[in-house]
Amino acid sequence: MTSAHVYIGISLDGFIARKDDQIDWLDAFDVEGEEHGYDAFMEEMDVVVMGRRTYEKVLTFGFWPFSKPVVVLSNTLTGADVPDENAGKAEFFTGSPQDVLAHLDSKGWSKAYLDGGQVIQSFLRDGLVSDMILTRLPILIGEGLSLFGPVARDVRLEHIETKSFSKSGFVQSRYKVLNGAD
Amino acid sequence: MTSAHVYIGISLDGFIARKDDQIDWLDAFDVEGEEHGYDAFMEEMDVVVMGRRTYEKVLTFGFWPFSKPVVVLSNTLTGADVPDENAGKAEFFTGSPQDVLAHLDSKGWSKAYLDGGQVIQSFLRDGLVSDMILTRLPILIGEGLSLFGPVARDVRLEHIETKSFSKSGFVQSRYKVLNGAD
Repeated sequence: MTSAHVYIGISLDGFIARKDDQIDWLDAFDVEGEEHGYDAFMEEMDVVVMGRRTYEKVLTFGFWPFSKPVVVLSNTLTGADVPDENAGKAEFFTGSPQDVLAHLDSKGWSKAYLDGGQVIQSFLRDGLVSDMILTRLPILIGEGLSLFGPVARDVRLEHIETKSFSKSGFVQSRYKVLNGAD
Repeated sequence: MTSAHVYIGISLDGFIARKDDQIDWLDAFDVEGEEHGYDAFMEEMDVVVMGRRTYEKVLTFGFWPFSKPVVVLSNTLTGADVPDENAGKAEFFTGSPQDVLAHLDSKGWSKAYLDGGQVIQSFLRDGLVSDMILTRLPILIGEGLSLFGPVARDVRLEHIETKSFSKSGFVQSRYKVLNGAD
């Protein structure tokens, strides 16, 4: 079965975006010359899975930032909604996290990068996240979209490694999710 | 003026206790032989400041865990509420964070350890926290009492250092609060 992996930046108080989806605060840090490992992570992934909200945020970037196929989870969007310039780069799918992984598996994709809070929360709730790389930014934004949400029971994780970055002050930890998928 | 310092354990999803104030999940980790630095931190402090809720939690421990004077912030408790066995160890005070620090200063205490979510949040909101040592535990508990809360504007921090602990998987980061007190 396809495995699911998280790589995401998060404020010290647990948010991945402001309430209006803005991520301006991510740009407040000097990261010049720092290698946080995103490219190496993405290189290992076969497909990117995100929710509609994250997808619509990505469309505002003005460029398509993914080199791998993208699956957008949405009950309402259809293939017709993919802008022409992104044709063939993104597809839409609706179903449970388990359904999503089965679909990815059927396409021959073995590692999925989960992007966006809602998608990550739903996969965590269903015990379907293998590991997470969390990059903690040294800022409190007070309110916004939380990375984490309710869980049916405590989820234990195994800490694999932590790196900190002297210029930005980022602290990046890698965890294996113990109650999740292996 | 007295400076205020935070040293606290927090779940990966940002909680310091369950909704019912339980901290049972803190005990789920094997920390034998690990030195997390609490004693060294406390040694530097002159006084402990906590809210009523934290104080009442401490009373359930069955022992008094602080070697330094304790100031409990409460609008309702009075000196008469200190159990006999803790007489002289705790006093009650009511006032704004600024008032609290002025009070501590008048007592000759120069470094205050802030304990408990409400107290920490109120001091952060007023820009009166100097630094924070956060020990992040590898567990998601889903809901509970948040360490952080709303802030009037983004609070930037300077990352000082991060240590991780191989047995427990704890990740401990020390931050200076840049928009806060110096």
